[in-house]
Amino acid sequence: MKPICLVIGAGAGIGGNVARRFAQEGYHACLCRRSDEAGLTSMVEAIEKENGSASGFLLNAVEDGSIEERVAAIEADIGPIEVVVYNLGAQIGDRALADTSYKAFEMGWRLGTFGLFRTASAVCPAMEARGKGTILVTSATAAVRGNGGQHSHAAAMGGRRMLCQTLNAEFSSKGIHVAHIIIDGAVDAPDTLGKMLGPERFQQLRETRGLEHDGLLLPTEIAETYFYLAQQHRSAWTFEMDMRAFSDKPWWNH
Amino acid sequence: MKPICLVIGAGAGIGGNVARRFAQEGYHACLCRRSDEAGLTSMVEAIEKENGSASGFLLNAVEDGSIEERVAAIEADIGPIEVVVYNLGAQIGDRALADTSYKAFEMGWRLGTFGLFRTASAVCPAMEARGKGTILVTSATAAVRGNGGQHSHAAAMGGRRMLCQTLNAEFSSKGIHVAHIIIDGAVDAPDTLGKMLGPERFQQLRETRGLEHDGLLLPTEIAETYFYLAQQHRSAWTFEMDMRAFSDKPWWNH
Amino acid sequence: MKPICLVIGAGAGIGGNVARRFAQEGYHACLCRRSDEAGLTSMVEAIEKENGSASGFLLNAVEDGSIEERVAAIEADIGPIEVVVYNLGAQIGDRALADTSYKAFEMGWRLGTFGLFRTASAVCPAMEARGKGTILVTSATAAVRGNGGQHSHAAAMGGRRMLCQTLNAEFSSKGIHVAHIIIDGAVDAPDTLGKMLGPERFQQLRETRGLEHDGLLLPTEIAETYFYLAQQHRSAWTFEMDMRAFSDKPWWNH
Amino acid sequence: MKPICLVIGAGAGIGGNVARRFAQEGYHACLCRRSDEAGLTSMVEAIEKENGSASGFLLNAVEDGSIEERVAAIEADIGPIEVVVYNLGAQIGDRALADTSYKAFEMGWRLGTFGLFRTASAVCPAMEARGKGTILVTSATAAVRGNGGQHSHAAAMGGRRMLCQTLNAEFSSKGIHVAHIIIDGAVDAPDTLGKMLGPERFQQLRETRGLEHDGLLLPTEIAETYFYLAQQHRSAWTFEMDMRAFSDKPWWNH
Repeated sequence: MKPICLVIGAGAGIGGNVARRFAQEGYHACLCRRSDEAGLTSMVEAIEKENGSASGFLLNAVEDGSIEERVAAIEADIGPIEVVVYNLGAQIGDRALADTSYKAFEMGWRLGTFGLFRTASAVCPAMEARGKGTILVTSATAAVRGNGGQHSHAAAMGGRRMLCQTLNAEFSSKGIHVAHIIIDGAVDAPDTLGKMLGPERFQQLRETRGLEHDGLLLPTEIAETYFYLAQQHRSAWTFEMDMRAFSDKPWWNH
Repeated sequence: MKPICLVIGAGAGIGGNVARRFAQEGYHACLCRRSDEAGLTSMVEAIEKENGSASGFLLNAVEDGSIEERVAAIEADIGPIEVVVYNLGAQIGDRALADTSYKAFEMGWRLGTFGLFRTASAVCPAMEARGKGTILVTSATAAVRGNGGQHSHAAAMGGRRMLCQTLNAEFSSKGIHVAHIIIDGAVDAPDTLGKMLGPERFQQLRETRGLEHDGLLLPTEIAETYFYLAQQHRSAWTFEMDMRAFSDKPWWNH
Repeated sequence: MKPICLVIGAGAGIGGNVARRFAQEGYHACLCRRSDEAGLTSMVEAIEKENGSASGFLLNAVEDGSIEERVAAIEADIGPIEVVVYNLGAQIGDRALADTSYKAFEMGWRLGTFGLFRTASAVCPAMEARGKGTILVTSATAAVRGNGGQHSHAAAMGGRRMLCQTLNAEFSSKGIHVAHIIIDGAVDAPDTLGKMLGPERFQQLRETRGLEHDGLLLPTEIAETYFYLAQQHRSAWTFEMDMRAFSDKPWWNH
Repeated sequence: MKPICLVIGAGAGIGGNVARRFAQEGYHACLCRRSDEAGLTSMVEAIEKENGSASGFLLNAVEDGSIEERVAAIEADIGPIEVVVYNLGAQIGDRALADTSYKAFEMGWRLGTFGLFRTASAVCPAMEARGKGTILVTSATAAVRGNGGQHSHAAAMGGRRMLCQTLNAEFSSKGIHVAHIIIDGAVDAPDTLGKMLGPERFQQLRETRGLEHDGLLLPTEIAETYFYLAQQHRSAWTFEMDMRAFSDKPWWNH
């Protein structure tokens, strides 16, 4: 039986590429995303074309019980989850305080913080019982500094980072590897950055910085690091690391 | 007309003492707390006995509209709020993940993060229009590191810190001074630490570390610093500072 | 006998104003600076005109024994040093690695890190024996992030910050208050910023940002905070705080 | 011609194992260490027995010109240096301020900070001209917090971290990958930890925590991560990461 890598937030950017990378190395990838069934199916098929193994699930992470039931069903029907990648973002662009509704602020928390808490609550008991597991959490610059207009996102990500530290404090010695990965730059991801910018501005950004110049974070390359982290020997685990394109400045320099 | 200092979370520890300190310096203090009407009245009376001016309000901060309505009523009936002290804690003691209910996790966020967002949303428009205001936020060690068992509290406080940075990024140049104060140690506060430990253990702790040895943070002394921060000239504002007893180790040393 | 406040690095910016502020409150201020005897004398006279008490000393901090001998002489001839303000900067402007000589890099360390170590080595034994003392350390943005061109300065300040933490870890419980103050912005200081920019650019900057708009850190206001820190009760000491003008962005936002 | 990996500080712990790991992947490893010629020779021979390629050099890093001349000689005689691993430590154990001589403090800086500056000054021009290069810097917990007794070490490592940020700010966009790796725990390294503890205590520690339980950082596993970092695609570089054994607590939790 193949080990399972569950990706929550499996769009065409980091999530989908991480799923594919684990599938290439012999994992069964479970891809979950909120919408776009066609996109989901096509990602599963792409993995299968490479002789990988994958399942796709539509999952609305803010819905009560959605994550919990999906985890339970996978453990019951497919097998033990060895790696979870929590890849749900909560970036809604910059908004002044007056333009940030209570609903938007709460949605940031539901996706950015509470969803990870629910995921950990769902997967940790079985991982602890098995004495091993990996929880890889995609995070953002907003986890370490709150820029103007980021009220919802920064609060969500700041909470996420501290939650990761707390999870690590409880579960590291029980064999569960928690890693908080700060994606500190724009990712060449059509499903997130592409949608936020719109197709024209996204293509323009890709052409200026991305395609030839490696100036955007390439999700295939990010996926390499996620996979590497999951292979680290338990004598030398990494909890936190940052990533950005070589031509980009780290958050502390701008 | 006296300037107003609104304290949200005015128990017998930091909140009540900060209210009293501002009242001593000529502010009208508005004290808000969830329960214990007798305690609230007695704090207001203690301020009045010193010839200070104060009002007390019971306020359930997690209730819809409670903070918003209180802010509006004070601005309408008493006068402009010059200083807000957000002093609601969310510490529930250490609990394993399995013992941290979704409800407890959400309550941490409602008190620790969302309540501050609602408070800022309520006070900032008028402060911005007046070109001045001060928002002092009591924070905790859990805002900068997530210890074992602190799932709810650390996520709430990590979110609070990043939210403070975002508020500061938007409002500092508009004359609103936001300060994030990391209370990095045990406070000699009967209403919070006292209740968490129970009367016997609290008294024991006070005797070992507090009464003669200044080994607990004295809320009267913390109040001095809160008042000082509110007086800083706008050419030299502090956003973040930590506080602890001299005999205690900073969080990074233990 | 007046308590003594020793200021190492007492130019016309932070250092001189801190000396003056302590003198106004009854301290005898000992002002040390490397050069400009006329400027030094005039600062001492200005303090005396306000009925304050002060002495001025030329001191080349990088010279072997200079700090140590000055400390010993003050303790022997004037009285116990209660407060030391270490205010020597090491900013030399932005220089590419290729343009940063070994000598410049070492000078940064000598002024920024080693000088503080020597100062602490000189004052701590007597402070420890008396069970009290205060060491206020002026620091800079470069203590918490290394920007381009700051090879010498950032290495010096990063070392300074960690040294302050180590000093605090050893001496806080012995009654010595160490505070690391991050001056995160341009200071209206003719002797440092003024000399780095040259008189014309400095005056231009003052006019755009400083004089009427409080957009530069005013050293008189910084001095208020230094004095406040030295008065904090030992039950509620601050180790680290930042300061900047209200209209300036914190380092993490740019 | 094989790419060259130069390791400064190649004892039997991290340095030697990193050299060996790069040699296994086709690099020519240049191992430099201060003393123990026999140990150096035996490491070179071990690499050659695995069909790897290596050279060993005795190098006293604090000596004027030593690093600079070694770098120049390697570039002239062997070939272009693609990867430099700066692995010199400066840990001397905990010493009270009174027991930390000026010489010990300066030695910390010479090994911990200045040596890296000299190394970067020596290798960066050629790396920049070639448009690529990697500088991997072993760092320590003391780079991010100053514990009691760590005056020399924390000042050196705090400076090292800020220097790495400054180097990265200047050279990342020129194709040089700088990584600051925080080794946050005890390493199973006879040449450093072993010598500091003495043979008996070291063996005892290994038996309690290390041999069977993976409770010490294994240098072979650390070497995997160093190698991985050097292979990261430039669109997704990591500047900083931490490492510790699964059973150990991160520095912020104790």
